[in-house]
Amino acid sequence: MRILSGMRSTGKPHLGHLITLDKWVELQEQGNQCYYFVADWHALTSHIDSTEGFREWTIEIIKTYIAAGLDPERSVLFIQSAIKEHAELFLIFSMLVPVPRLERMPTYKEQREQITDRDLSSAGFLLYPVLQAADVLIYLADGVPVGEDQVYHIELTREIARKFNNLFGEVFPEPKPILSKVTKLPGTDGRKMSKSYNNFILIDNDDKSLWKKIAPMMTDPARKRRTDPGDPKKCPVWLYHKAFTHSEDELNWVMEGCKTAGIGCLDCKRVLHKNLVNRLQPVWEKLREFDEHPNIIMDIIEEGNRKARESARETMEKVRDAMKVSW
Amino acid sequence: MRILSGMRSTGKPHLGHLITLDKWVELQEQGNQCYYFVADWHALTSHIDSTEGFREWTIEIIKTYIAAGLDPERSVLFIQSAIKEHAELFLIFSMLVPVPRLERMPTYKEQREQITDRDLSSAGFLLYPVLQAADVLIYLADGVPVGEDQVYHIELTREIARKFNNLFGEVFPEPKPILSKVTKLPGTDGRKMSKSYNNFILIDNDDKSLWKKIAPMMTDPARKRRTDPGDPKKCPVWLYHKAFTHSEDELNWVMEGCKTAGIGCLDCKRVLHKNLVNRLQPVWEKLREFDEHPNIIMDIIEEGNRKARESARETMEKVRDAMKVSW
Ligand code: SF4
Ligand code: SF4
Repeated sequence: MRILSGMRSTGKPHLGHLITLDKWVELQEQGNQCYYFVADWHALTSHIDSTEGFREWTIEIIKTYIAAGLDPERSVLFIQSAIKEHAELFLIFSMLVPVPRLERMPTYKEQREQITDRDLSSAGFLLYPVLQAADVLIYLADGVPVGEDQVYHIELTREIARKFNNLFGEVFPEPKPILSKVTKLPGTDGRKMSKSYNNFILIDNDDKSLWKKIAPMMTDPARKRRTDPGDPKKCPVWLYHKAFTHSEDELNWVMEGCKTAGIGCLDCKRVLHKNLVNRLQPVWEKLREFDEHPNIIMDIIEEGNRKARESARETMEKVRDAMKVSW
Repeated sequence: MRILSGMRSTGKPHLGHLITLDKWVELQEQGNQCYYFVADWHALTSHIDSTEGFREWTIEIIKTYIAAGLDPERSVLFIQSAIKEHAELFLIFSMLVPVPRLERMPTYKEQREQITDRDLSSAGFLLYPVLQAADVLIYLADGVPVGEDQVYHIELTREIARKFNNLFGEVFPEPKPILSKVTKLPGTDGRKMSKSYNNFILIDNDDKSLWKKIAPMMTDPARKRRTDPGDPKKCPVWLYHKAFTHSEDELNWVMEGCKTAGIGCLDCKRVLHKNLVNRLQPVWEKLREFDEHPNIIMDIIEEGNRKARESARETMEKVRDAMKVSW
């Protein structure tokens, strides 16, 4: 399959990204042709007034892609805004989508209602899923690893592909969402991960700062004292265990120990910390290599952009020929 | 001044276009730096389902630009869709414009209400003025020759320029509309010019077919018989005279003769025909030259595209640097 997915460059990569990356690596290892990008234009749709960090974060994210196991020789790693053809296809697709169809997108309605600290009234934000469709279809991707909330966007992508093909002849596949059953990590305080709460754990932390983030994590409020039993289902630490503790024995030890007050929350967190350090050690090592040879990453980005551009251009030739507007 | 304007590639050039071109030539002759393009992406916003003629029409329009007096050595003549950077700037600008601002555009509301034979519900049609702002600002144009209905679009362009400059630093000028007092030509039947009425006079017609279009033109209904006096103000032929008859004597002769029934409508139309032939003769000759050497026009288009691309790229470098998203 041809796979495409991306992450927005609105901040440094954190543990939530790592879980997504595991899925991406799996798809790469299965021998799929994968395109993974940093969505800096998407980031603009909600963060047009704070682009200062974009460049640095974009580079951090690509580093993390590789540190987490993506191989730039096998997967195409690139930056959205470096491939201008996305913008051209976005413009063309915008003519295939009725405005009310976009206004009815559940993600759009939800975010307009829930997010009040940013201005999301822009046309660019409304057309976000159209840009996403261009991202996917320009590489003729047929599989898109997404979270559940993004399934609507893939449905729109399929509609656009269908409409284009009907008007101009078969150019695009109708991609399918690839859903994974991974737990969605909450913030360390149990709320949704968010920059304004500063409640996420960055990937480039070391052993010690990792503990500083884990030790004060919110737990089941029932466990006021060491002797009070608790319920992991009510505890964010448990969701982190589910994501990063792979030994059945240890998971049982947490479940049992918590319910019976056999273990304390700090004991529980120490095991999580140990497992996270194990998971992150090779990632940190890779990241440190990049720090020592900063040119490597720029070369990798350039090479990835080059490959992506080549594919995107091929598709756009087909698109323009089909539409009879090639110059 | 830096001037930018364009015509949509939705059909062959007609006399209405010629009047606009006179203004463009005047601006060129005044020594302005002019960018004139064929807006094939704009044409898509309303004609996505009928692109078959686009390429041919685009070439016809560029030929007519030159035949009407634009000089490819002094003015940059190019094709919108050949300059991908317009799409990139369009994407960025879409993030600076609130959806309600676009929905309130008088031109948008009007066209949504009046045009019923085409589907204008697309996001692309709503964002039409944003693409127009990108067209203008990517060449740092400060003057835009437009019809009165387009003044709102230039106002939006100015707003976008202001907003971008406020966020990212001074990159864009705030362009001004250049209004000309030319008469808006009606169709030969007195209605609005429209393809579906087939009521316009193409520029590439010859002497004879021109007469075939003029002879049956609608006149003041009061002049049922040769002896009935009429009123030029109620006659589309008069508006054509105002545009193409430059001798005061002849204009007076029409006005007097019509009101007193001193002349017949056919006499009146014959004078219009004579003046139109005079006006069009050099245009036809130029067009025939292109027919004899079809390569010339393709070379001119390529060279114009090259020049436009160079300017557009320069601006986009500034834009990306200002936004800190350059790759
Ligand atoms: S023991 Fe572990 S799972 Fe139970 S409340 Fe404490 S931190 Fe949470
Ligand atoms: S004389 Fe000329 S202006 Fe008067 S009604 Fe006839 S065509 Fe029109």
